[in-house]
Amino acid sequence: MCQLLALNCFNPTDASFSFTGFSQRGGRTGDHTDGWGMAFFEGKGLRLFVDHQSAAHSPVADFLRRYPIKSRNIIAHVRKATAGNVSLENVHPFARELWGHHWVFAHNGHLTEFAPQLHGNFTPVGQTDSELAFCWLLQELSKSHAAMPSTAELTLTLQELIPQVSRHGTFNMVLSNGLALWAHASTQLHHIARAYPFGEATLADQDWHIDFAQHTTPDDRVAVVVTTPLTEDEPWQAFAPHELRVFEGGSLVAQHMGDAAHAKARQALPADVLLRIDEAVQRIQNMLAQANAGGPGVGTTQ
Amino acid sequence: MCQLLALNCFNPTDASFSFTGFSQRGGRTGDHTDGWGMAFFEGKGLRLFVDHQSAAHSPVADFLRRYPIKSRNIIAHVRKATAGNVSLENVHPFARELWGHHWVFAHNGHLTEFAPQLHGNFTPVGQTDSELAFCWLLQELSKSHAAMPSTAELTLTLQELIPQVSRHGTFNMVLSNGLALWAHASTQLHHIARAYPFGEATLADQDWHIDFAQHTTPDDRVAVVVTTPLTEDEPWQAFAPHELRVFEGGSLVAQHMGDAAHAKARQALPADVLLRIDEAVQRIQNMLAQANAGGPGVGTTQ
Repeated sequence: MCQLLALNCFNPTDASFSFTGFSQRGGRTGDHTDGWGMAFFEGKGLRLFVDHQSAAHSPVADFLRRYPIKSRNIIAHVRKATAGNVSLENVHPFARELWGHHWVFAHNGHLTEFAPQLHGNFTPVGQTDSELAFCWLLQELSKSHAAMPSTAELTLTLQELIPQVSRHGTFNMVLSNGLALWAHASTQLHHIARAYPFGEATLADQDWHIDFAQHTTPDDRVAVVVTTPLTEDEPWQAFAPHELRVFEGGSLVAQHMGDAAHAKARQALPADVLLRIDEAVQRIQNMLAQANAGGPGVGTTQ
Repeated sequence: MCQLLALNCFNPTDASFSFTGFSQRGGRTGDHTDGWGMAFFEGKGLRLFVDHQSAAHSPVADFLRRYPIKSRNIIAHVRKATAGNVSLENVHPFARELWGHHWVFAHNGHLTEFAPQLHGNFTPVGQTDSELAFCWLLQELSKSHAAMPSTAELTLTLQELIPQVSRHGTFNMVLSNGLALWAHASTQLHHIARAYPFGEATLADQDWHIDFAQHTTPDDRVAVVVTTPLTEDEPWQAFAPHELRVFEGGSLVAQHMGDAAHAKARQALPADVLLRIDEAVQRIQNMLAQANAGGPGVGTTQ
C-alpha cells in the first residue's frame, strides 16, 4: 500500500508543513520506502519531482522540505511497491497532458483483473495498475469531451468512470488538472478544509506545532486530503467507502457517495424533500463557484 | 534566443561539469534569464526539473549542480523569451508520452507562420512556437508508426518532418526518447564525443578544469551537444546548416545534411561510388548499433 497527499488552495500555498509530516511515512514513521513523488501546479505549468529513493532519506525530498514552492494544487505520494518494480517509471504521481492542460494522478490500492482496452493516446510507461487506470481515465475523459469542460461536467463524467475502475479492487486516488482536485476513496482517505479563523495544529509524524493564524491571510482557504490524518488535533473528515469529493478554490464543492449508498440514502426521503435538497446543493455549489472565481491573494505554509 | 544542452551516454553519467558551465549562461555569462529546465531519463523513467527563475540564481539549479543525477540521456535549456510569457508552462524542455515512452524536446530559435493542424492527441499547454512544433512532431510520428520503431526508422521519419518545421524559421533542437538523441541545427549547434583515452577540459563559463581520465572507465562514451562550446580546449564540431545528427550509446550513429546540401554533394559523385559509400555507412551503423547494445557500466561526471 501507499500513502496519498493532496492540497487544493484558494491562494498559492506551500506544503512544507504537510510534506514534512507526510514524507516521514516514507521510511521513518511508515515503511513506504519504494520511491516518492510530488507535483506542483503553477498556473498552467507543472513541476513534477519523482525519486526512487525513500522520501525520508532522499536528498531531493530534503530539498523540498526546506524550499517552499507555492501552488494552488499539489499532489504527493509515498510508495510501497505492490505491482511494478521499484524504478522511476513506476513512481507516482503520474502526469499526462489532455486538452492542453497537465493532469496529475496518484493512487493507493491494488486492482485485479483490470485490463481495459487502450487506444494509444495514453499508454503506460511503467508496469503499475495505477498508471494503467490513469491512462484509461484520461482516454475516457477525452472521448466524453472535445475540450476542457467545467469542473462540474468533469465530475459527472468521473462519477461514471471511477466505479468501472474501483470494482476491480481498492481505488483510493487523487486527480488534478491544476484547477480542481478530485479525491475518491475505496477504503481510506481523509480531508480537512482550513479557513479563517485559522487555528493551531501539531504534526502526527514529526515534532512540529504550528499556529496557522501567524502564516495566513483572512482570504486563505486550503483543503488537505491525505490517507491518514497528518495532524493530531484537527477534525479530519473520513471519506465514506466509494465517496468522491471535489475541491476547488480550497473548498469542498461537491461530495458524491457511491451509487449503492447514495441510492439507499435517497430512498428514505420523500420526493419533494429530495428536490429541495438538490436545489439547495446546486445553489451552494453556484455560490462557491462564484466565490472561488475571486482574485488571487497570498497564501503561506500549510 | 535560448541555449540548448544535451548528453547521450553509453553508461549512466552525471552532467555536473557540463551543467555548471551551461547554467552560467542563464544570468551570469549569458542573458538567458527567463527560466531553465533539465530532463534526466532513468531507464524508462524521467525526471524533469523546470523553473521560471534564472539558472544562475535558481535554488533548484544550485541543488542540481551539487547533486549528481546519473542518466544516459539528458536535455537542458536556458530560456530567453521571444514567444510566450515568462511562466512555467513555457519553460523547456517539454515532455510528452508516446508509445509508452517519455519524449523530451528543447528548441532554440523562432518560427513564423507555423500553424500546423493538431488533431488533439498532443496539445500545447503554453504559448511557445517550440511546444507547438514538439506536439506536431509527435503527432506526425504517431501517425507514421503504430509502436516505437527503431532509431534508424525514427531518423528516417524525422528527416521528412523536420524540414517542414525548419522552413518556418530557426529550428535548432534536441529530442530524445530515452534511447537516442536527435539534434538538428538551422544555425548553431556543436557536439563533442568523448571516449577512451579521455583527455582534459576547461569550462569556458566557469573556473573548472577537469581530467576526465580520473572520472571515467575505459568503456565510457559520452556525446555532448550544445549551442556554443562548453569547454575552451576540445575539438567541438559545428553542425552544418540543416544538419541532423543522431546519437546512441554515447556515439554519433548517423549524420544527415539537409536535402539541398545533401543532394548537391551526392551529385558530384559517380553512382557506383555512392552505392559503396551508402553500403559502408550502413555497415558502420550496424556495428555501432551492435556495440551500443552492450551491457551497462559505470559512468561519472561529464
